[in-house]
Amino acid sequence: MLINCTAYQHGRKLADIPVEAIRDTLQQPDTFVWVALKDPSANELAVMKNEFDLHELAIEDANHRHQRPKVEEYEDELFAVMHLVEEREGKLQVGEVHVFVGANYILSVRNNHERDFLGVRARCEREPKMLAKGPGYVLYALMDAVVDGYFPLIEKLETEVEALEERIFTRGAARSNIRRLYRLKRKVTLLRHAVLPLMEAAGKLHSGRVPEVCAKSRHYFRDVYDHLARINASLDGIRDTIGTAIQVNLSMVTIDQTEISKRLAAWAGIFAVATAFAGIWGMNFNHMPELTWEYGYLFGLGVIASAASFLWWRFRKAGWL
Amino acid sequence: MLINCTAYQHGRKLADIPVEAIRDTLQQPDTFVWVALKDPSANELAVMKNEFDLHELAIEDANHRHQRPKVEEYEDELFAVMHLVEEREGKLQVGEVHVFVGANYILSVRNNHERDFLGVRARCEREPKMLAKGPGYVLYALMDAVVDGYFPLIEKLETEVEALEERIFTRGAARSNIRRLYRLKRKVTLLRHAVLPLMEAAGKLHSGRVPEVCAKSRHYFRDVYDHLARINASLDGIRDTIGTAIQVNLSMVTIDQTEISKRLAAWAGIFAVATAFAGIWGMNFNHMPELTWEYGYLFGLGVIASAASFLWWRFRKAGWL
Amino acid sequence: MLINCTAYQHGRKLADIPVEAIRDTLQQPDTFVWVALKDPSANELAVMKNEFDLHELAIEDANHRHQRPKVEEYEDELFAVMHLVEEREGKLQVGEVHVFVGANYILSVRNNHERDFLGVRARCEREPKMLAKGPGYVLYALMDAVVDGYFPLIEKLETEVEALEERIFTRGAARSNIRRLYRLKRKVTLLRHAVLPLMEAAGKLHSGRVPEVCAKSRHYFRDVYDHLARINASLDGIRDTIGTAIQVNLSMVTIDQTEISKRLAAWAGIFAVATAFAGIWGMNFNHMPELTWEYGYLFGLGVIASAASFLWWRFRKAGWL
Amino acid sequence: MLINCTAYQHGRKLADIPVEAIRDTLQQPDTFVWVALKDPSANELAVMKNEFDLHELAIEDANHRHQRPKVEEYEDELFAVMHLVEEREGKLQVGEVHVFVGANYILSVRNNHERDFLGVRARCEREPKMLAKGPGYVLYALMDAVVDGYFPLIEKLETEVEALEERIFTRGAARSNIRRLYRLKRKVTLLRHAVLPLMEAAGKLHSGRVPEVCAKSRHYFRDVYDHLARINASLDGIRDTIGTAIQVNLSMVTIDQTEISKRLAAWAGIFAVATAFAGIWGMNFNHMPELTWEYGYLFGLGVIASAASFLWWRFRKAGWL
Amino acid sequence: MLINCTAYQHGRKLADIPVEAIRDTLQQPDTFVWVALKDPSANELAVMKNEFDLHELAIEDANHRHQRPKVEEYEDELFAVMHLVEEREGKLQVGEVHVFVGANYILSVRNNHERDFLGVRARCEREPKMLAKGPGYVLYALMDAVVDGYFPLIEKLETEVEALEERIFTRGAARSNIRRLYRLKRKVTLLRHAVLPLMEAAGKLHSGRVPEVCAKSRHYFRDVYDHLARINASLDGIRDTIGTAIQVNLSMVTIDQTEISKRLAAWAGIFAVATAFAGIWGMNFNHMPELTWEYGYLFGLGVIASAASFLWWRFRKAGWL
Repeated sequence: MLINCTAYQHGRKLADIPVEAIRDTLQQPDTFVWVALKDPSANELAVMKNEFDLHELAIEDANHRHQRPKVEEYEDELFAVMHLVEEREGKLQVGEVHVFVGANYILSVRNNHERDFLGVRARCEREPKMLAKGPGYVLYALMDAVVDGYFPLIEKLETEVEALEERIFTRGAARSNIRRLYRLKRKVTLLRHAVLPLMEAAGKLHSGRVPEVCAKSRHYFRDVYDHLARINASLDGIRDTIGTAIQVNLSMVTIDQTEISKRLAAWAGIFAVATAFAGIWGMNFNHMPELTWEYGYLFGLGVIASAASFLWWRFRKAGWL
Repeated sequence: MLINCTAYQHGRKLADIPVEAIRDTLQQPDTFVWVALKDPSANELAVMKNEFDLHELAIEDANHRHQRPKVEEYEDELFAVMHLVEEREGKLQVGEVHVFVGANYILSVRNNHERDFLGVRARCEREPKMLAKGPGYVLYALMDAVVDGYFPLIEKLETEVEALEERIFTRGAARSNIRRLYRLKRKVTLLRHAVLPLMEAAGKLHSGRVPEVCAKSRHYFRDVYDHLARINASLDGIRDTIGTAIQVNLSMVTIDQTEISKRLAAWAGIFAVATAFAGIWGMNFNHMPELTWEYGYLFGLGVIASAASFLWWRFRKAGWL
Repeated sequence: MLINCTAYQHGRKLADIPVEAIRDTLQQPDTFVWVALKDPSANELAVMKNEFDLHELAIEDANHRHQRPKVEEYEDELFAVMHLVEEREGKLQVGEVHVFVGANYILSVRNNHERDFLGVRARCEREPKMLAKGPGYVLYALMDAVVDGYFPLIEKLETEVEALEERIFTRGAARSNIRRLYRLKRKVTLLRHAVLPLMEAAGKLHSGRVPEVCAKSRHYFRDVYDHLARINASLDGIRDTIGTAIQVNLSMVTIDQTEISKRLAAWAGIFAVATAFAGIWGMNFNHMPELTWEYGYLFGLGVIASAASFLWWRFRKAGWL
Repeated sequence: MLINCTAYQHGRKLADIPVEAIRDTLQQPDTFVWVALKDPSANELAVMKNEFDLHELAIEDANHRHQRPKVEEYEDELFAVMHLVEEREGKLQVGEVHVFVGANYILSVRNNHERDFLGVRARCEREPKMLAKGPGYVLYALMDAVVDGYFPLIEKLETEVEALEERIFTRGAARSNIRRLYRLKRKVTLLRHAVLPLMEAAGKLHSGRVPEVCAKSRHYFRDVYDHLARINASLDGIRDTIGTAIQVNLSMVTIDQTEISKRLAAWAGIFAVATAFAGIWGMNFNHMPELTWEYGYLFGLGVIASAASFLWWRFRKAGWL
Repeated sequence: MLINCTAYQHGRKLADIPVEAIRDTLQQPDTFVWVALKDPSANELAVMKNEFDLHELAIEDANHRHQRPKVEEYEDELFAVMHLVEEREGKLQVGEVHVFVGANYILSVRNNHERDFLGVRARCEREPKMLAKGPGYVLYALMDAVVDGYFPLIEKLETEVEALEERIFTRGAARSNIRRLYRLKRKVTLLRHAVLPLMEAAGKLHSGRVPEVCAKSRHYFRDVYDHLARINASLDGIRDTIGTAIQVNLSMVTIDQTEISKRLAAWAGIFAVATAFAGIWGMNFNHMPELTWEYGYLFGLGVIASAASFLWWRFRKAGWL
């Protein structure tokens, strides 16, 4: 689905143009065309391939989707893939943006994701000085928007981790904790798959041999790289914390187990003593003097109660009860 | 076993030729020969060595099999080894393809694997413009076919992991879970051994000093590299998830153990109380007034039942029962 | 909030100047301006941006805060971010210093941190020869002060780890140990996030292509780098030790559990024997000769006591009691 | 002990020569001397040092033994150390070969190892064309023989791992499994110490700046490197598998423990019920109507048996028995 | 404390000179001064700083101590820090040597360590040809002595690990094993902190751009590097083994726990059966025929004994007893 197709000159919007006019517009000096597609059909992509002379392999990737984040150079054309991650009903959903950038065009293709990039376009159009840097700057603006979308997810993960931290030292929550930790780990893994390769790709756009089309925006790509590095550091921290939390949770369960064993042992002991005494006075020997005492029964109950109390007190002191 | 032996000129099939004609055909300009063997004998390989002037060490490797994936340069000859992995009866079987590539020939040798590469040849012949890039492009086409064969395995592993994820939080399945996790881990290890060195080798064919014969297909090898990188990232994710799942499974078993201990402790306590009371009224003291009451027995049973019920209620409330 | 705004010439303090005079002062030869801000508003930063011609992206970072430590070059301007870590009420609090360094100015911005850098300024003013090296030396002095602030934290962590080491082999402290270990791990993670990227950044200021403004202080930055490397090695050591301690703690809990099981088993056995004997002599068979013996009861108690004592002695010898 | 001392010209054996003739023989063009020693005394090494002008540090290393595998360059002399590993009585024994290689000599010193290299010499002498490449080729031949000696060990380790895989899911074998896993781990560690540094060293002999004496055999060293890489990948796989197997074994033990607890709980419950009923009918209340029934005893036994059976059936269904 | 202050010319001792004469002596051609200090005061270091013109930062480090091992270049001056590790009363104590090396002087400062370097000096003086290489060779000799001091510690650690290996499969030693393993781990960590950075530093003295003063002794530094690499490999091996041993120890404890549970379950079962039978015959039903049999009591005891024996035999066979 075509969202926009606009020509810009010296950083200012010239006009929305029909797709067929692209090829001609590209001939004008100091002009570039910015096209936005959403979940395009193979046909729509084929049309774009023709208008912009895109590289076959890049188009193939865009058709197949499920690419990992990357920035690839084909002669004077750049092909970038980024993952759009959003949370829907507690699960992370991954969409993709494919961006084709040339000296005088930029084509962004959004797949399987609700949030659009109209805000990015509006912001770019408000700053003609920036937009005048050309398609490279637009690539930066898109990348910046994608990366900004990761921050709330990271913050949510950090909040969840902190909430869990309180819980792992609470008794009885082990089963649900381990479940949550596992789910958090999975989310972190998914985000890392979006962040790490993109960081690597952004690195290539600001240091070493930077592609021509991005050269003027090099500082901006370093800024994106820096955001990704920060996100990545946070993810590493969360990952590490989850690993420790799983170990801690297991330790807490084992400690719980030990405490229950102690309590079990203590009560078993108390009742075993009571039962043993009762058993002894239940024996049928003919001559058991205390059985004939007037207050023998009370005496017996008293002995049993005393022994049980004594044990109870001992176990209490030892911290078993 | 010889599968094919065909000469191509300017990307078009010239003719199937007999093995003895290879040496002569190689003299013709803009022509290359593409030979396919399957589980060849040492003799067949020796013939090929003669016709194509292959390097002794490469031929030795092809004879020994059990090579790890690699791409080696011998002067102007390339020798590539790739692993073909397929699932037969729930187990992963590893076959090998050895490919010898020169300026005007390509020899592919398939070992211990059912799937053939006729589809690759047909596709190449349909695109003469591509095939005109020479043997390097054929190497790419073979490599691409091999790598494409990994995707369904990865998807199957991911499905298995997801199925297990449901199960590790289910009680009573720990024993079979751990078995499955172990088997999955082994499969991942095997696939990594196929993917990781091949990725490294593909890297050398698209960046830095690219061998002459592959130079024209450099973008294509980057595409293969990219696919391998994606597979590798998936494998890393699966590996990581399996590691966590093993830990989680152990935690679940320990939690189960704790819950069983609690239940055991609870019932032991209830019966111990009943037994202790019964023991007390079973004592033989002469003066035990309640024994002579008319409804003494009922009273006794009532006390026992009340105590047991009270305990049961307490344990229930504490979540032990 | 403006803390200081001072001009220096040939390493000596010239005068405190008003903010509006900065731009003029920067025109004088061999002179640089050192401004210190604390928790500045966006407005204050905008003023500074104007006076010093700071790069927009750097100012944006300074406005957003929550940056990871880094040193970035914008043409002939350096932008450094460092984390200030201090312990308040047992928790580590992270503040930030942002430093903008140019050929003839240095602007340091302190956020969310109590400790000021007046000591650094005083020390610098006492050593005009050093200060004459220019803003690069001031950057070093600030960095050195920040890094020196990490040492007491590291020492405290090491003391806590050593205190825990004594405790993990003590019985009954497992629950609080695991809690402390977890908290220590979190503190280490937080400090690593402050130290590791700063170390990387400091590395770029002393080896390879060093930014012009720092060239004269290169040996000093290596010194800072070295301190960070030492801190980092300590953190790695603590981290590793915490990991081992968590494993050891779990082992100790499991060993405790085993010992409790043994004791439980031993006492259960002793009472089970007593109860079994009492039960036997409580049976109602008509002909049980020992029941009619004159000292039958004593004999019975003796048998029970002997059996229990024998078991007690056996268990004692086996180390179960 | 001197094993051989032979001169070769143009790849063909010239003659066995006495040690004293070495220095003179080295003067002849296109000639090299190949000496083999076994567990030499310091004296023997001193003689060789003189004849070949070997570097003092290399000789010191050869005297001390216990070197890690390496290839060192001393001007135009190469000094290589390789580990010979063999299994004697179920334990891995490590011997060492030290090889000194110069432009026209090769001296191999074998320490603490039974297998000799006569086969290598014979094979070399059968291929004069190869041997004509000089001492570098002999170094390759020796290295190849050493590395070939690792393969059977790897295969044995893999067989042992596979045998263990069957056993870790078997009940009751945990104790011996863990012992075997530990021993396997130790063997893997030992082999890695032999393989990893040698791989690194072999890497330096085929890529980058290759020492003069090995230049002609560079492809051969790549072949050795490749074998080592394959061995190393296998070792990594085994290592990884052992790590997982240890975790799995612990999980299996814990699962076993849980199952035993369940069974224990079940039987304890069944007997506790029987004992409680028996205790109740053993009470001495005057009015317990069922005691006077004619078939009261049978009724009592019936109740006990029914209760016990019911519990048994319930536990059975729940999978506890 | 000054230990030595000696001038050397052409590798031969010239004379012990007073500290004040250093500056003059340094003027003489082909002469260098070697000073050794032990736990010097700040004053003594200040004097040396003057005589040798040492860099302020290096002197600061020497004053502060607690440096990590390193080799730093200050123009034509080298500053090296090495850790001296010795075992006192079962604990590893870390001392430090700081070495300042220039074109014609070497100053070694030993801190907090008993062992002196007189042996190194004596050995150097016995080999004038070596000593003639200048201060760089002395640095090598000192480094070699320090590194040689690590070997006995490594051997002791390896012996301790082997001793523990026997013990972890022994029952009942788990508690002390885990304690020992923890202590070993700590020692390994401490040694790694001494070895790893020194290895890195030694690497810089033999490959790449080697500092002028060490150029002539480059092969010797490679030798030191090699020793450190060997030590490091041993430490890695020990570390890895300790990690596995901790896991194995935990597994053994869990296995022990399982076996105790089984035994507990078995005996509990046996006594429960005895008690249940005794309880049944202790019931007060009027008509219990076996109670009136003449040999009823014997019959009862027989039944109890048979049941118990049968269970005992079953448990024995199942390996629970």
